[in-house]
Amino acid sequence: MARKKLVSDVGEVPLVELARKICKSGPRVKLGPGDDAAVVETDGIYLVVTTDMLVSRTHFPPGTEAEQIGHKAVVSNLSDLAAMGADPLGLVFSIAFPRSTEIDFVKRLLKGLDKTSREYGAYVVGGDLDESDDVIIAGTAFGIAPNGKYITRSGAKPGDLVAVTGSLGAAAAGLKILLDGLKARGFKQLIKAQLEPKARVREGKLIAQSGRATSMIDITDGFAASLWLIARESGVKIVVDEDKLPIDDLTKRFAHKYGLSAKDLALFGGDDLELIFTIKREGWEKVESEIRGIGSDITLIGEVKEGKGVYIRRGEEIEKLPDRGYRHFQ
Amino acid sequence: MARKKLVSDVGEVPLVELARKICKSGPRVKLGPGDDAAVVETDGIYLVVTTDMLVSRTHFPPGTEAEQIGHKAVVSNLSDLAAMGADPLGLVFSIAFPRSTEIDFVKRLLKGLDKTSREYGAYVVGGDLDESDDVIIAGTAFGIAPNGKYITRSGAKPGDLVAVTGSLGAAAAGLKILLDGLKARGFKQLIKAQLEPKARVREGKLIAQSGRATSMIDITDGFAASLWLIARESGVKIVVDEDKLPIDDLTKRFAHKYGLSAKDLALFGGDDLELIFTIKREGWEKVESEIRGIGSDITLIGEVKEGKGVYIRRGEEIEKLPDRGYRHFQ
Repeated sequence: MARKKLVSDVGEVPLVELARKICKSGPRVKLGPGDDAAVVETDGIYLVVTTDMLVSRTHFPPGTEAEQIGHKAVVSNLSDLAAMGADPLGLVFSIAFPRSTEIDFVKRLLKGLDKTSREYGAYVVGGDLDESDDVIIAGTAFGIAPNGKYITRSGAKPGDLVAVTGSLGAAAAGLKILLDGLKARGFKQLIKAQLEPKARVREGKLIAQSGRATSMIDITDGFAASLWLIARESGVKIVVDEDKLPIDDLTKRFAHKYGLSAKDLALFGGDDLELIFTIKREGWEKVESEIRGIGSDITLIGEVKEGKGVYIRRGEEIEKLPDRGYRHFQ
Repeated sequence: MARKKLVSDVGEVPLVELARKICKSGPRVKLGPGDDAAVVETDGIYLVVTTDMLVSRTHFPPGTEAEQIGHKAVVSNLSDLAAMGADPLGLVFSIAFPRSTEIDFVKRLLKGLDKTSREYGAYVVGGDLDESDDVIIAGTAFGIAPNGKYITRSGAKPGDLVAVTGSLGAAAAGLKILLDGLKARGFKQLIKAQLEPKARVREGKLIAQSGRATSMIDITDGFAASLWLIARESGVKIVVDEDKLPIDDLTKRFAHKYGLSAKDLALFGGDDLELIFTIKREGWEKVESEIRGIGSDITLIGEVKEGKGVYIRRGEEIEKLPDRGYRHFQ
């Protein structure tokens, strides 16, 4: 008899496909499993809901403080709302701790949850506390899509432009420092990018409210992996220009010092929590100026074409961008 | 130096108190951590949100099928919405599996989530799948409180009546059969009560919409423990009549056969998922007839007095009901 298929054989994406196939939709469900968040309509209000689970062993590098675990649990959920263009209202958390956890650690983690939520105008409104061998934080963030406008991963169309907020690579560089125990001197901002990333909530709302964006996703498992998700879900080809990638400056200096590729950190490193989106050409200028208007960076990096897959252009050469990325480690 | 305080030193209730203290409220938050669910108001809609985490090692007795784990994850969340009087809209689940889990198990668990949700008119709209040593399911259910009417644990007033839906003890009896490996012959319904309990969603809505209920809670950690929560949160004394307790008939037969106390199973056993509520005297008859009208049982069991604590009356004698219960086991 053939060995039965195990979770370790299939990886995360096929598991999500399974959930998509099995979980049936209902009349008020505008968007079910498989995007950054779900959308449910009730009384003309578009509720946006997402859940994200962090497991200490695989999601938190050595040196992560309790407050930072709390912070990250909040922003990883809010970033998914941001990728829909939603306005966060609140969060709930189910958290399991080992019995040997110090109460002080629990307190500091809860303080991290509370403080970071409020920075985004959202509140921790409930939770369940339990026991397990690992610290496990399952958060759910909920909010509304103002005017019923939300952006999925599946609407990119040939001719659209591709853009990204902020810069790329710093979170992956920070992870490298922590995992390899490299000297942090001069590179503290990279560690901060890994342990205290920001969710692009205001940016996501501006992009969605423009009415011109056609798809959006946040970078969790890496820039390349996120672009591939948009290309697959939208059934299009995406071509990005290597020269235009907004690779973080400090990440470049870090990479140079340690003989690493800043480009690889930017393309395949996770946790940047920036937003990648596609937009109709005529909508670009307004969104660009609005996002700069709130003090954030935004960069045009490529365009959507007929076809399939994700490609990167270097001068005259075009090659396929590998569909890989990482976020967890072990 | 004194040993630092650990999670194992304090138990669940003080941890919840910690969360209550630390997590600050906001303008739209009508009800924060510490009740069955949270309530957040937006555009005149009262959103009700709850999260519940189940850990396989401590929440699922031997013999629990994958579909039943899915079922229980849904009803344990919907029961919390029921205890507020809310109408469920959807659920999201963050689930961790050991890498050695068979995909077939994952499929059946997801089918259990989907099927049970739809039985309550709600839908599984999203999720996150992860890895851990234990099967861990963190669910979040969200819904609305129709007409903004929801019931907390803290509104019971002296003079109110105390009532409970359905019957008591069957889930605890079922757990006993499974844990001790007793013969199930003739007692299958008890195992079903443990593994496939129902959430009292329709009953909760009728109770809340009556406008006369003053407090409500679902029984998860046991009847006594739930009554104590109402008494403490409302700052009142509750007296119940032992003769009036609707102890499940099959549980009585089971207890008699095995020399157990049916009353103890009913008072201190968890997982019945019935609703306990307090109500103004003039509201009782209407709620009673409405709940019977949908084919459910409901029983008047006592009353609310000035004072503190929970007491049980046996004929002329009144004694304090111990504040204990169980749900998890290990």
